[in-house]
Amino acid sequence: MAEMVNVAVDAMGGDNAPMETVKGAVEAVNEDKRIRVFLVGIEPVIREELKKYSYDEARLEVVHASEVIETAEPPVMAIRRKKDSSIVKCMNLVKDGECDALVSAGSTGAVLVGGQVIVGRIKGVERPPLAPIIPNVKGISLLLDCGANVDARPSQLVQFAKMGSVYMESVIGVKNPRVGLVNIGVEEEKGNALTKETYPLLQNCPEINFIGNVEARDIAAGAADVLVCEAFVGNVVLKMLEGVSGALVGKIKEGLRESLRSKIGALLVMPALKKTLKGFSTEEYGGAPLLGLNGLVVKTHGSSKAIEIKNSILQCIAFKEQKINDKIREKIVLED
Amino acid sequence: MAEMVNVAVDAMGGDNAPMETVKGAVEAVNEDKRIRVFLVGIEPVIREELKKYSYDEARLEVVHASEVIETAEPPVMAIRRKKDSSIVKCMNLVKDGECDALVSAGSTGAVLVGGQVIVGRIKGVERPPLAPIIPNVKGISLLLDCGANVDARPSQLVQFAKMGSVYMESVIGVKNPRVGLVNIGVEEEKGNALTKETYPLLQNCPEINFIGNVEARDIAAGAADVLVCEAFVGNVVLKMLEGVSGALVGKIKEGLRESLRSKIGALLVMPALKKTLKGFSTEEYGGAPLLGLNGLVVKTHGSSKAIEIKNSILQCIAFKEQKINDKIREKIVLED
Repeated sequence: MAEMVNVAVDAMGGDNAPMETVKGAVEAVNEDKRIRVFLVGIEPVIREELKKYSYDEARLEVVHASEVIETAEPPVMAIRRKKDSSIVKCMNLVKDGECDALVSAGSTGAVLVGGQVIVGRIKGVERPPLAPIIPNVKGISLLLDCGANVDARPSQLVQFAKMGSVYMESVIGVKNPRVGLVNIGVEEEKGNALTKETYPLLQNCPEINFIGNVEARDIAAGAADVLVCEAFVGNVVLKMLEGVSGALVGKIKEGLRESLRSKIGALLVMPALKKTLKGFSTEEYGGAPLLGLNGLVVKTHGSSKAIEIKNSILQCIAFKEQKINDKIREKIVLED
Repeated sequence: MAEMVNVAVDAMGGDNAPMETVKGAVEAVNEDKRIRVFLVGIEPVIREELKKYSYDEARLEVVHASEVIETAEPPVMAIRRKKDSSIVKCMNLVKDGECDALVSAGSTGAVLVGGQVIVGRIKGVERPPLAPIIPNVKGISLLLDCGANVDARPSQLVQFAKMGSVYMESVIGVKNPRVGLVNIGVEEEKGNALTKETYPLLQNCPEINFIGNVEARDIAAGAADVLVCEAFVGNVVLKMLEGVSGALVGKIKEGLRESLRSKIGALLVMPALKKTLKGFSTEEYGGAPLLGLNGLVVKTHGSSKAIEIKNSILQCIAFKEQKINDKIREKIVLED
C-alpha cells in the first residue's frame, strides 16, 4: 500500500474561506485515497461547513486554531504573536512531522515568514524561493523567485535553478526542464550586475539544462520551463502577466459589444474564447510551492476557489512520492 | 510664421529601411508645413525611393552617409568607427544645431550611445532615460527608463520623474501627470533598496504629482501616466506587455478557429477585435524619446512602418514649440 500523504490545510486563509477551503479539502480526500487532510481553523465553523459533504472521515481531521492572521497584518509580528492561528498551527504540524505539507490561501507574508521561521530551511539552502506556475502559450513554466526577499545573490539564483529543475521534472513531469535566466537581452554580456555574475555560474552547473538568457518578451511564448530571477523581477513578471491578460480580456469584451455585428459574433465565439482564456489564467494551476524547506509549503491565491485548493493538495502527493526534498538536498550538498 | 522644425531621419535604420523610413519622412513633410526633413543615408538609394512620391522639395533634403550601423554591432565601437554612418551623421546634425531632433529605427544601442556621446546631455542630467509610450486600457503612459544602463541611483529616478512629467504634460498633453514608482507593493516600505530610497525623494519633490508605488499588475489598467523605474525593470515591463499581448492574441485567434461555430463568429467579431487590439499595440504610438539631451533623439521600433516614422517626426513639433529642453533645464537646475 502506498504511504499516506498528510496535508495541513489552512481552513481560514483566503478571501473565500472557509467555504472554498473546506470544499477543496473534501474534494481532494474524495479524489485520491493517498490523501489525509488536517483542516486547521476555528473548529465549529469548519464542522458546520463539513456538514454539507460526505467523505472518508478517517482521512479528514479537524484541528482547532482559535486565531486568524489577516492579510494586512505585519507578517513577522503576526507569526510571533498569534501562536494559535491557523497558519502557525499548520506550520507546526509540518515542523513536527505530523504533516508532509501545508496549503494556505492566507497572508503571503505570513506564509513566507512562517515557512522560514517555523518549518525551517533545508541545510545549505540560502533562501527558499516562492515558485508559482505561470501559463504560456505552449504549456506552463515555473517562475522563481516571487517571494518577499528582493536583492538576491548569484549563488541564490543558482540554487533557485536547481530546486526549480527538480520540482519541474519530478512534480510537474517536464523531462530535462530548460532553465532560462530572465534578462534584458539574450547575449551573455547583457544585464545588470546580478545577471552578469549569475550567467557563468549557471552555465557551469552540470545538474541543470541551462539554455541562457530569456527576454521578458519570450516568457509568454514558453521560452523556458524554469525561469530564474530575483524576487523583484519575478514579481513584475508575474503581475504583468496577470495585469496585461486581465486588461486585454476586458478590452476585448468591451470591443465585442461595440456593434450589432460584433455582438452577434461574440455570442458565437464566447465558448471558444472562454476556453482559451481559461488556459491562460494564472489561477487555473495549483498553488506556488515555497521550495527548500523541511516539508512542502504551498501558497495559493488569496482568491482561491475549491479547485485550486484541491489541486494544491493533490500536488503534494508527487512531492512526497518523488522525494523532492531528498533530491534538493542532494543537489545543494553536491554544490557545497 | 511658425519656426521650422528640422528633423534628421536615419533613412537606413530598421528592418524596413529605406522603403518605410523614406515614405514616413515624405508623409510627415506633406502633413505639416512646419516640418523640414533631412533624410540621411546612401544618397542614390534614397533618391530612388523618393522618385515614388511628390513633396515640397524645399522641405526635404538628402544628406549622404556612406556607412550603415548594423543592429548586431557593439554600439560603442560602431559609433566610434563608423563616422560616416547614417546614425552618426544624424547625431552630428543635431549636435551642430542644424537639426532640432533626429528619428532612428536603427540599432538601439548605437542610438543610446550616440545620443550621450555625440548629442550630449543637458547640464545637470545624470542619465538620459529612454522613455517609450505604452498603451493601457484607458490611454497611454510614459515608461522610463527602458534604456541600456541598468542599476540606477535614486537621484536618477527622481530626474526621470521630472523629465517624464514635462514630456507627458507638454508633448502628450496630459495635465498634471500622475507619477508612479514601479514597485512590488503599494505600501511605502515595500520594495528593494532602490525603491525604498527613492520613495521619500519623490514624495518630497514639489514639481511632480507623485501618487506613490504602482504594482506591475495595475500598469495595463492605467494606474499612472508616468511610470518610473530603473532600466532592467522598465525593460521587463515593456517586453512583458508586448509578449503577453502578442501571445494572448495568437492564442485567441487559434481558439477562434476551433469549431465551425467559432469560425463564423470570428468573421463577425474580427473588425471590432482588430480595432481593439490596435489600440493596445505598442507600435501604434510614436517612437521613444531619449530625454535630457541637447536636442531630441527619438528611437522607433526596429520594425517601424511609415506611420510610426511619420508620427515620430511630427512629435518633434511639440517638443520644439513647447521648449521641452528649457523646461527640463529649469526643473533639473531647480533641484541642484
